Parts: sequence; structure tokens; C-alpha cells
Amino acid sequence: MTANDLPFSLSEYQRRLDLTRHEMTERGLDALFVTDPSNQAWLTGYDGWSFYVHQGVIILPDADPIWWGRNQDANGALRTVWMAEDRIWSYADNYVQSTERHPMQDLSARLAGLGLEQARIGVEMDNYYFSAKAFETLSSTLSQVFWVDATALVNWQRAVKSAPEIAFMRKSAQISEKIIDGLLERVEPGAPKNEVVAEIFRDAIRGVEGAWGDYPAIVPLLPSGPDAAAPHLTWDGRPFETGHATFFEVSGCYRRYHTPFCRTIFLGTPPDFLLRAEAALIEGLEAGLEAARPGNRACDIANALAEPLERAGIERSARCGYPIGLSYPPDWGERTISLRPEDETVLEPGMTFHFMPGLWMFDWGLEITESILIRDEGAAETFCNRPRKMFVKP
Amino acid sequence: MTANDLPFSLSEYQRRLDLTRHEMTERGLDALFVTDPSNQAWLTGYDGWSFYVHQGVIILPDADPIWWGRNQDANGALRTVWMAEDRIWSYADNYVQSTERHPMQDLSARLAGLGLEQARIGVEMDNYYFSAKAFETLSSTLSQVFWVDATALVNWQRAVKSAPEIAFMRKSAQISEKIIDGLLERVEPGAPKNEVVAEIFRDAIRGVEGAWGDYPAIVPLLPSGPDAAAPHLTWDGRPFETGHATFFEVSGCYRRYHTPFCRTIFLGTPPDFLLRAEAALIEGLEAGLEAARPGNRACDIANALAEPLERAGIERSARCGYPIGLSYPPDWGERTISLRPEDETVLEPGMTFHFMPGLWMFDWGLEITESILIRDEGAAETFCNRPRKMFVKP
Repeated sequence: MTANDLPFSLSEYQRRLDLTRHEMTERGLDALFVTDPSNQAWLTGYDGWSFYVHQGVIILPDADPIWWGRNQDANGALRTVWMAEDRIWSYADNYVQSTERHPMQDLSARLAGLGLEQARIGVEMDNYYFSAKAFETLSSTLSQVFWVDATALVNWQRAVKSAPEIAFMRKSAQISEKIIDGLLERVEPGAPKNEVVAEIFRDAIRGVEGAWGDYPAIVPLLPSGPDAAAPHLTWDGRPFETGHATFFEVSGCYRRYHTPFCRTIFLGTPPDFLLRAEAALIEGLEAGLEAARPGNRACDIANALAEPLERAGIERSARCGYPIGLSYPPDWGERTISLRPEDETVLEPGMTFHFMPGLWMFDWGLEITESILIRDEGAAETFCNRPRKMFVKP
Repeated sequence: MTANDLPFSLSEYQRRLDLTRHEMTERGLDALFVTDPSNQAWLTGYDGWSFYVHQGVIILPDADPIWWGRNQDANGALRTVWMAEDRIWSYADNYVQSTERHPMQDLSARLAGLGLEQARIGVEMDNYYFSAKAFETLSSTLSQVFWVDATALVNWQRAVKSAPEIAFMRKSAQISEKIIDGLLERVEPGAPKNEVVAEIFRDAIRGVEGAWGDYPAIVPLLPSGPDAAAPHLTWDGRPFETGHATFFEVSGCYRRYHTPFCRTIFLGTPPDFLLRAEAALIEGLEAGLEAARPGNRACDIANALAEPLERAGIERSARCGYPIGLSYPPDWGERTISLRPEDETVLEPGMTFHFMPGLWMFDWGLEITESILIRDEGAAETFCNRPRKMFVKP
């Protein structure tokens, strides 16, 4: 059995593998063990909600990748990866959450079986789901291996998107637009928040013509009024209120590809300070989009944004964006570039970011954001096409 | 500012802290650093989708817990934890996903400031979100600390639920029932899977009278036919088909408390082998519920289940359940007890489990499960109350 519904062509997976192997050679790695679910999927197609147990992909210089995970999840690997069945390896169920044995003991034996007992092996020390105990177990059982921190090695290869990836993101963007359109209709004083979130999820998963909806890697965030000072609150059953701004941080998702998109809705008549902040933020966004062009650097976007905000007396300390694309919970960012003054990464055509200059102040908040694509020339393209403003429902 | 909508009373949080400190004393710990989001919430009330960056809670023997995280998330901590504002500590935004600095350098300095440079400090080596790099950074900057593996120390304190926790789970169970009721109505040949999942999410988040719906820690799982061999596949846009069994693994969630509930729906006329498996599974579930009583052991449930299955020629290798309650993605289990032959944990009143004997065979699958409560005496109570069978829609 091989996957019958791979999201991408075999040549696209080969492209990704070539990039990864090239970087492995640069760093002198004999093997790379990839635990970040988004990296696993990007390299092999593996897709399933099984990242709550130890699993990963072994990348070798001269043989197909090996998917390694829990016994019962090998059935899912058989159905989703492009490699042949003999590249799917699994461990017994009594390794799962055991106090007596650890899945990484199984992996160690397999790495030794590959002749890697004294090799240079890369591990994602600070990606998701590679626990301190996992590394301790690996390094104590394979004490002759030279372990190399390969955090984000694969993530960096993902920075420039291929045409088929961008096509997926355009579909995801249509779903993002649909979510925001629904919110503009439904958010009103007295509507319980959870009822509105229920419709966000429904819109997101129903998707649009030609694009069924996948689950986004972050749930909707929608704090109101003074709570909008806190960027990562979720929701409860209380109603929206007149006099409050609520920001909505949402994303459509198509086959794990995201285009986050945030808008703020004010119910009633907004105070002057908020209107001034909105004007400065929009000016900053437009300056940032202009700066987001090939050859410029990540920091150029951040600096362009900061100037009109500072003139309006608004000081932001957080980064104002991050790369986006394929992702799994808990984050839809790629965890490589950060749009902030100290990041001098040069922008290239095909890079995609969530340009996300959220304002989270002492007792109010405002989010107006864009998912963007660095073009071959000129200012960035926005994936979504909706008015760039704070929406006011009087 | 203090949290204005704490899910539990201060005395409930004190009870949890007392249990945790007692275990810390038993293990000779001077401090405990808790990174698992479910443990953070259980101890402090902290609630927010910010676990994608390094954060945690410091538990001390003689002073209130300290929430520690990213600067912008301190605003969320202020709004959700029971401790006073001076127990909320945060690090600068340029520590986030930086290649130059690591948040654990900030934490190290703070632990040193607490006089813990030579202390015995517990860390959750194999819980979620405590990365290999996090531990490497902590241990290299605080080289005199004696680090103790405290994986699941807090999780074990959560095993026996308090009355208010059980009340939350009863609300969650009503939501689980509502989801399954909706599925029985909506699943039919030709209905696209994602459309049905959209309604699952809508039902889950709308909740029931008196209980708004929170996001479950795992998304709906619903593979059909031969794909039901794979327990953790999610969905796509293809339609349900006549002749296929589909299992639905779902959970309601109320204020982060879960009661997972799985049922299988067959469209058409089920084959004999599936009806025989269903009969054996139901007999096993009933035997397991009888065995799930105080004084018995976790393995007694597993062994009771296995007997009728073996008679029917069905061999399962996976564990058949795990504790449930408060959780965050990526898992709704508590990662302590496993219902399997080698686990001799004694069952106590107030323990709650997902009794989950999924059958994932070579080319078919069947799930009929119950979330259960160990009573003061007698067989377990099921949280949900729906027919225990494979539903057939001819």
C-alpha cells in the first residue's frame, strides 16, 4: 500500500529532500532525526494526530527517509507517506507513556542497526515534541554518537515556497477571508462568544469551493476590551459588548497550509485614541508591505512599521511577524525568521510571512494583519483581500 | 488585577498545591518547574494558547507559585491565575525563537535570584513542551543545581478528581453526547467528511444549556473502511460511502475538562466479521466496567476486556485506556496510568478514565468507548449515556 492522496508530487518531495540533504552535507551530518510534525509532513507527507507520542523521521544521505513511530500509527504512515512500506518502522505499544521503558531506546537500537553508532546525527533540540528525556535517553544509549543541534535545519529549507505550496496557501486564504466575512456579519452586542467561535470553526472546516477545510494549528483568539491586552486568550460564553474592540486572530487551513488573518471589530463608537492607533497601524502596515521586497531584510519591514507607530506614541516590543506555511499545533509559524530589528535575513521571492504587528497595550489591544508573499519584484502581495482597517459596527 | 473568572475556588487550588508540595517533600525537592500546560492550569488557573513558546510555573515549598513566560503573555496570566501580580514574571520578546539567546537563560537567572543555585529542582523531563534544548540551557547555566526528573509528578496528583472537577466533566459529557447525536443524524452516504466535521466543531463549541464549549485537546478523528485501521487519521473532503464503518473519536470540553466518547457508524449492511467483533467488544466493555471498581487494579480492566476478545480471535496489543480530565493539545490523556496488563495501579474512587479499547486491525477498525468514573463502590459509572453499540444506517 502507498499513499493514494499525496498532497504533492514525488518530484516536490524530492526537491525538499535534496535541499535538506544539501544542508546536512554542509553541516557534516551522517543522519538527521526530525521530530517536528510539520517537518515530518513536509518531507514525507505523514499526516495524523499522533504527535502526542514519540515519533519522527530519519533522513539519510543515500536512502529514502524512514518514518518511525508507534505501532498503531504505522497504519497511518502507510496511508500518508510516499516511501515504500519497508521504510515504515514502529515500536511496541508498551513503550507508550511507560515508566519502565522509553521509545527512544527502540530508536537507539535502530540507529545502531543502521551502522550509526559513531556517526554525526542531527536532532531538533528546540523544535516541538523532542523532550529533554528523549534526548537524554538517546544520548545515554548511543554514547559514541556525536549529536549535533539541528534545530530548525529543515524549517529553514521551507522558507521559500514552491508554486504548488503557494497554490495551497491561496486556497487557505480564501477560507481566511470567508471567516472574516462571517465575523463581520455575526459579531454584535449580546452574541455569546462561543456561539460566534462555533461559526468560525464551521466556516473554516467547510472551506470554500474546491478547498475543504483542515484544522488550523492555533484555535481562534478573540479577547475583547481590556482583555485584548492579552494576545493569547481564547473564549468563554460571555457576550460581546458595546464599547469594546475585539480582535479576531484566525486562519484558514488547506491541507495543513495556513494564511493567518486578523481583523478588529469595534461595537459602538470607538474612542479617539483607538482611531489614532488604527491610523498609525495602517500607515505602518502599508510602509511594511512596501519594504517587504526581495533584497531587503526582515528588519526593514519591522523598521518601516515602527516609524509611524512611534510618531503616534505607540511602542511595540514584540516582533511583528514570522514565516508561515505548513504547520501543526501548537504553532502556525515556521520558527526561523522573525520580523524584528535584529533579524537581517534577506528576503527572497517565494517567502511567505504573517505580517503581524499586534498592538497589546496596558488595557486595550488592536490587530490588523496580513499574510504576505514576497514577489519577484516590488512590494509584497497580500494573500487575503479585505479592507485593511478596524471595522466599526455602530 | 486578579483573575475575575477562576474556574475553581481558592481552596481547590490550595488542595492541589498541598498535594504537589507533599510529593515534592517526599522526593526532597526544593523547587519544581512545571511546563506541561495542563499542570500549569491545574495549579494556577493559567489559560491561554501560548504554550508554543517557553513558559512554566515555579512551585516553591513556602511561597505562592510563580508564573513565568513571555512578556506579552503576562497580560494573559494577570487575567487567569489566582496569584497576585508580583508572582507573574516574564521575559523580553527577543528571547522568542532567537538563535542568539534562549528563554531558559532568563529562567536560570531568576532561579538563581531565588537562591536556588545549588538546590534540588524537579523538571518535567518527558512532559510536553520541555525541549531538549531547554534542559541543556538550564543545566549548563545552573551547573550546581541537582536536577531531578519529575515527569508526571503533578499529573499523578490529578488522578483522583475533586467534586467540582467531576461536575465539569459531567458538563463536558453532555457535550460529547450532543456530538454523537448529531453524527447519527448527519452521517450518510455522499456527505463530505469535512462538512460533517464542521458540524461536530459547531456542536462542540456551542455546547449545551449551562455549558459553553471549549476546544478539545484533540481534533475529531474519523477514518472509514480500510482507513479505520489507522487510529489517528483526521479528515478530508471525500464523502462517506455505503459499505464502510467509520469510527468517530470525539470529546466535549468544558473549561479544559474532557470526556472522550467514541462510536462507530456503519452505512449499509455490516459484514458478519464486524458484527462478531462488535459483540465481543461490547462484552469486553461490560466486563471491563465491572472490573473498574475501587481496590481493583488498572490491569484488571485490561484483562477483563481481553478475555471475550480473545475468544473471538481478536488480538489487541495497544493499551485500552488512560486517565482523563483537564488537558491541552496535543493530548487529552493525563499520561500516568495505562490500562494494560503490566499496570498494577490500584483504582480509587474519583479516578476518571477513557476506557478506550479501539480495534485497529489490518484493513478495518471499530471504536466503541466510554469515559468512566470509579465510584465509591461497585462498577464504574459511565459519563455518557448512549447505546453501547455500532450504529447501523441501512
